[in-house]
Amino acid sequence: MADQAVARLAGINVGAPARPVPSGDFGLIGLAVMGQNLILNAADHGFTVVAYNRTVAKVDRFLENEAKGKSIVGAHSIEEFVSKLKKPRRIMLLVMAGKPVDDFIESILPFVEQGDIIIDGGNSHFPDSNRRAKYLAAKGIRFVGTGVSGGEEGARYGPSLMPGGNEEAWPYIKDVFQSIAAKSDGEACCDWVGDEGAGHYVKMVHNGIEYGDMQLITEAYDILKRGVGLTPNEIGEVFDKWNKGVLDSFLIEITRDILKYNDTDGTALVEKILDKAGQKGTGKWTAINALDLGMPVTLIGEAVFSRCLSAIKDERVRASSLLAGPSPKFEGDKQAFIDNLEQALYASKIISYAQGFMLIQNAAKEYKWKLNKPSIALMWRGGCIIRSVFLKDITNAYRKNPDLENLLFDDFFNKAIHKAQAGWRDVVSKGALWGIPTPAFSTALSFYDGYRTKELPANLLQAQRDYFGAHTFRIKPEHASETFPVDKDIHVNWTGRGGNVSASTYIA
Amino acid sequence: MADQAVARLAGINVGAPARPVPSGDFGLIGLAVMGQNLILNAADHGFTVVAYNRTVAKVDRFLENEAKGKSIVGAHSIEEFVSKLKKPRRIMLLVMAGKPVDDFIESILPFVEQGDIIIDGGNSHFPDSNRRAKYLAAKGIRFVGTGVSGGEEGARYGPSLMPGGNEEAWPYIKDVFQSIAAKSDGEACCDWVGDEGAGHYVKMVHNGIEYGDMQLITEAYDILKRGVGLTPNEIGEVFDKWNKGVLDSFLIEITRDILKYNDTDGTALVEKILDKAGQKGTGKWTAINALDLGMPVTLIGEAVFSRCLSAIKDERVRASSLLAGPSPKFEGDKQAFIDNLEQALYASKIISYAQGFMLIQNAAKEYKWKLNKPSIALMWRGGCIIRSVFLKDITNAYRKNPDLENLLFDDFFNKAIHKAQAGWRDVVSKGALWGIPTPAFSTALSFYDGYRTKELPANLLQAQRDYFGAHTFRIKPEHASETFPVDKDIHVNWTGRGGNVSASTYIA
Repeated sequence: MADQAVARLAGINVGAPARPVPSGDFGLIGLAVMGQNLILNAADHGFTVVAYNRTVAKVDRFLENEAKGKSIVGAHSIEEFVSKLKKPRRIMLLVMAGKPVDDFIESILPFVEQGDIIIDGGNSHFPDSNRRAKYLAAKGIRFVGTGVSGGEEGARYGPSLMPGGNEEAWPYIKDVFQSIAAKSDGEACCDWVGDEGAGHYVKMVHNGIEYGDMQLITEAYDILKRGVGLTPNEIGEVFDKWNKGVLDSFLIEITRDILKYNDTDGTALVEKILDKAGQKGTGKWTAINALDLGMPVTLIGEAVFSRCLSAIKDERVRASSLLAGPSPKFEGDKQAFIDNLEQALYASKIISYAQGFMLIQNAAKEYKWKLNKPSIALMWRGGCIIRSVFLKDITNAYRKNPDLENLLFDDFFNKAIHKAQAGWRDVVSKGALWGIPTPAFSTALSFYDGYRTKELPANLLQAQRDYFGAHTFRIKPEHASETFPVDKDIHVNWTGRGGNVSASTYIA
Repeated sequence: MADQAVARLAGINVGAPARPVPSGDFGLIGLAVMGQNLILNAADHGFTVVAYNRTVAKVDRFLENEAKGKSIVGAHSIEEFVSKLKKPRRIMLLVMAGKPVDDFIESILPFVEQGDIIIDGGNSHFPDSNRRAKYLAAKGIRFVGTGVSGGEEGARYGPSLMPGGNEEAWPYIKDVFQSIAAKSDGEACCDWVGDEGAGHYVKMVHNGIEYGDMQLITEAYDILKRGVGLTPNEIGEVFDKWNKGVLDSFLIEITRDILKYNDTDGTALVEKILDKAGQKGTGKWTAINALDLGMPVTLIGEAVFSRCLSAIKDERVRASSLLAGPSPKFEGDKQAFIDNLEQALYASKIISYAQGFMLIQNAAKEYKWKLNKPSIALMWRGGCIIRSVFLKDITNAYRKNPDLENLLFDDFFNKAIHKAQAGWRDVVSKGALWGIPTPAFSTALSFYDGYRTKELPANLLQAQRDYFGAHTFRIKPEHASETFPVDKDIHVNWTGRGGNVSASTYIA
């Protein structure tokens, strides 16, 4: 009752029926696993959270169980939900990406007012966030699109958060975001990313890199299993050891756990799991964006395609009886080879992150976003799926030199990849001879060898294009002559037949 | 004068000033190299062609030079152009893809009538052709989107033509199209492809495959140059020999010519050409479409990314001084290795085409188009850039079994790839050890080894996804139990912590 009196005194809802003073610091819509855990996380950090879900029975179930005794308030309608939030209202959506986000935004709009903040924490595609930021800004509502990574556990105990959008919102959400985010060496794994859809963009690349990391691990597991002939438990031991070295990371750690998780019959459960990988689309988006921006992000590309190949299991089963290959027979020093495999995984991972940062760097140019590279690596250091010691080294590299052209040019990674390459080459070459697929290890090595090659064979490709399509070529500056001047589009009549019309005039 | 009288008697332009009876069998807009050559080609086959170009001076220049003395008529306005064509008018656009096509369609529309045919022969993206087919059908105009391949030479002496769109148009354009198209063993390399943008779709995949073929050739060239240490002339000899075997094809032939083409100083011109490859986007479209349809078309993907990598030459030059690798030293029997390389190229090419047809097969399902696979291979056999003896074998395979699930399941290709694989593995493994990039050879081999693998390591990946994101997994049928039933989404609490909420409920 005292609350209502205060509200009236404060002039809230003048003339309207008395309402309790809103107590909610933060509102969250969407009570699936991520939403529930983020709410519990925020409540643990002293925030009063208002919870809503389209199927309202879920709200009650949540309040009676996981949320019981915590500073969590339920709402049974959007109107009630909004009315329970302090201003400016901080409303986070954790719903399915796509139309549900737009639908919820529309259903919220009648109840919010100028300056309120709507945060989309789903796996939205960044062009959608670009659009929503503009749409809501025109209505005076501040939109934030934030990447959230860390899965169930991360959401509950500290995710990596990558918010972007309307920067005016940042001062109002910083406390909640940095409180609930993971910490790494005392720093929150959350910082402002950039304009419009920049937060979701960085999350997209994060997911692409996650696809890559996972693909690399599965290739290592396959080689240890079919190439070296280890049991799941022995492979678990290898990952346990790797987790104490340069590969120390969440994904290596859970791989160890998975390999050591036995079914009731005492055999490894992982071996019973169907080898058809699903995807939620963000890896694919990264690969498509890389193609669109013309950046050779080959490792993520191969990781996505590998999932596609895994998905056509029935066809693979038919193929397995029609297509033969060598039978791997391991010879030599097992431990030395396993050490080489560790180096192959490490080197390939360096390439994948180098490619990912090349993409982000290029996107910043393309979309005119300011992106803070050291803080991106920092946000990924803890909380999220790709968290690792490795990202500390990347953070250091970009802190030392924010204008670093390529991760491979940093002293630490430069030394690391040089040290790793002999083992890496051994693994890729053995995979080819054994008949064990290593699409990600191989493409990483090809990238390394292509990237460090001053003169790639694309000269021949340009000659071919000019030969058959009059597409013209340019001359290497050191070979320029009067006939073939530098920086000019040159067409040669290679055959002595045909005309002298070049395709640069292929516009009517 | 007699013509005009006939026209009046025939009731044409009643009441309007007398005009000559239209004599044009076929009209073409766009006098760049492809357009000019297609016109000359059609004229050679007895058709009277009406030529138009936005910059009309080009029309006069063409009439006074290349077109002189042939059955080619010029026009200086769209109205004049249309008026010179017999009905139903057959109007082909060979202009820059994109807005110019729409603009020309709009400028033609006021002058054409029901039943007339507008053909877009440019490199249009298939969704644009889908749209245009619908748009023009609503106006009673028949739209055809046709792939045209073969470059200058092909356009002049017989291209590969891949028409799709409004099938009602086919009987009216079949004569011109099949007359001017290339012939292979007496059959025209042109047939009706399918509905809407199907013609441009098949052309897109053709171009993607072309990217792949070219990439494979450049990798072979690089290995011969840096790995085996041959001179351009010696490499030309190798390609000359290959052109007499299973690799017999246009691209191998021109590669031989290019390698043997010397500059005035007597050295190979190709070595002076800048190694930065351009692209017109169709390879990229194929890779993006493959990602969208979830088909592992890895070789084209790597080919596109390789062009992207070649394009950042300045960065590569800087990288070349900072990133070291092994120095290839060739040891052993050169000819035996070159024979292995031929097998590597052949096997990789088989994979690339198998992937391409997997994509086309899937697109037919996805877009509900009927596509005649044997005729697609036939259209590519002659005239176009990827023409080869190889495509005759593919035509045979699909003629023998139009429902062939995968090219690798055909006897001929099955035998071929088994015979090739030892050499292929040798090349990929040596490339890795030598430090010479082989992204396309490697990805092809990884695809082969993945495709023929009954149990890929994606089981681990699914376990990881369930571990960190509660994404669930399925059990292998042979390991199903009461706890883990077949065909059910299963979530395991891997850690003993966290909740039991699975992410399948991740919709608010």
